[in-house]
Order: sequence, then C-alpha cells, then structure tokens
Amino acid sequence: MTSTVIPNVTLTTQANVYFDGKCVSHGFTLADGTKKSVGVVLPATLTFNTGAAEIMECVGGSCEYKLAGSDEWKKSGPGDKFSIPAHSSFEIRVTEPYHYICHFG
Amino acid sequence: MTSTVIPNVTLTTQANVYFDGKCVSHGFTLADGTKKSVGVVLPATLTFNTGAAEIMECVGGSCEYKLAGSDEWKKSGPGDKFSIPAHSSFEIRVTEPYHYICHFG
Repeated sequence: MTSTVIPNVTLTTQANVYFDGKCVSHGFTLADGTKKSVGVVLPATLTFNTGAAEIMECVGGSCEYKLAGSDEWKKSGPGDKFSIPAHSSFEIRVTEPYHYICHFG
Repeated sequence: MTSTVIPNVTLTTQANVYFDGKCVSHGFTLADGTKKSVGVVLPATLTFNTGAAEIMECVGGSCEYKLAGSDEWKKSGPGDKFSIPAHSSFEIRVTEPYHYICHFG
C-alpha cells in the first residue's frame, strides 16, 4: 500500500536538484526527528551513490534498478520498496516518472 | 525573510511534473486545510496559466517574471513574492534553479 500523503511533517522548502533536474526531491522530518525525502526521477538512466543506507519506496510510476555488484535489473512499482546499503550505489532506469519516498538508515 | 522549513504539514508524496520536468512541485496542506506547494523551476522560459489566484514566494535562487498584459520583466529573489490573478498567466525566465512556495487564493 503506498502512502499518498504523510501527515505531521516539517517540510524543507528548498528542493534538492540532481543530474540537471532528472531527479528532484524535497526533504522532510517526522515528529520524532526521522529525516526522509519525497522525490521524482524523470526518464533517464542514472547512477546514485549512497552515504547512509536507503530504502526507496515507489509511490507512483515505476523504475528498474540494479544494485552495485548485481547484474540483474529489477522492476519496482507502486508499493514496492528496495534497499541500498550504505556507501554503495545503484543504477536506475526510468521511462515514466518514478515517484518515491526515500527512507534513510 | 524566507521560510526554510514549514512545520506541521500533510505532504502529498507524488510530485507534480510540468513542462517535461522543467518545473517540479510537491503539494502540502496546513493544519487549517490551506493548500500550498513547494517547487523548483529549472533553467528555462515557461508560461504558466493560473486557475485560482497565486502568490509565488521565492525561497532560493531567482527568476524573472512577466505578468499577462505587462511588458515588464521583473526580478524575484529570496524572500520576494509576486501575485498572479485567477484565470491569468505569467511568463517566467530562469537561469539558476528558482525555488518557491506557491500560495493559493
């Protein structure tokens, strides 16, 4: 089940713009201090590096992703999540806008 | 003074993508039910049409804008606001990402 809205958050007004705008996100903080972001990846093939571990949750559209060290492209659609270890990377291939929540840790 | 964060909002997880991603926004609702959005316009010259009246508040970067019926391009930077009537339009010219809060009505 995807989250269409997230109540009671503190929203950062300035966007994060990656890859000349192929990925745009806005950060937010839950009441307990947990930091997350909502964003969208536009049609492109991109490589993201992680600092902290991340969980990507699809809330609209879809993507294919390939984790570092894997040869397998996997599909992720609404409600699906995938995890990326800390200090790693993943490739993402998008043909329709992929809307996501990024959870850290 | 610009708002770097907005507390206690309900955030819509799916982005609004306009002009092939030259403008991306996320909607949110205040505790009193007021709807707003945060977004970014990437380098481009675009024309936006309004339904309801809007107030655009810059929270980062800058733009130049020209309201329908005006010949004058005006600059808007952090902390600046400009108003667009309902059922009207404006042109926006951006050379560095323009981060904004859109207030309605």
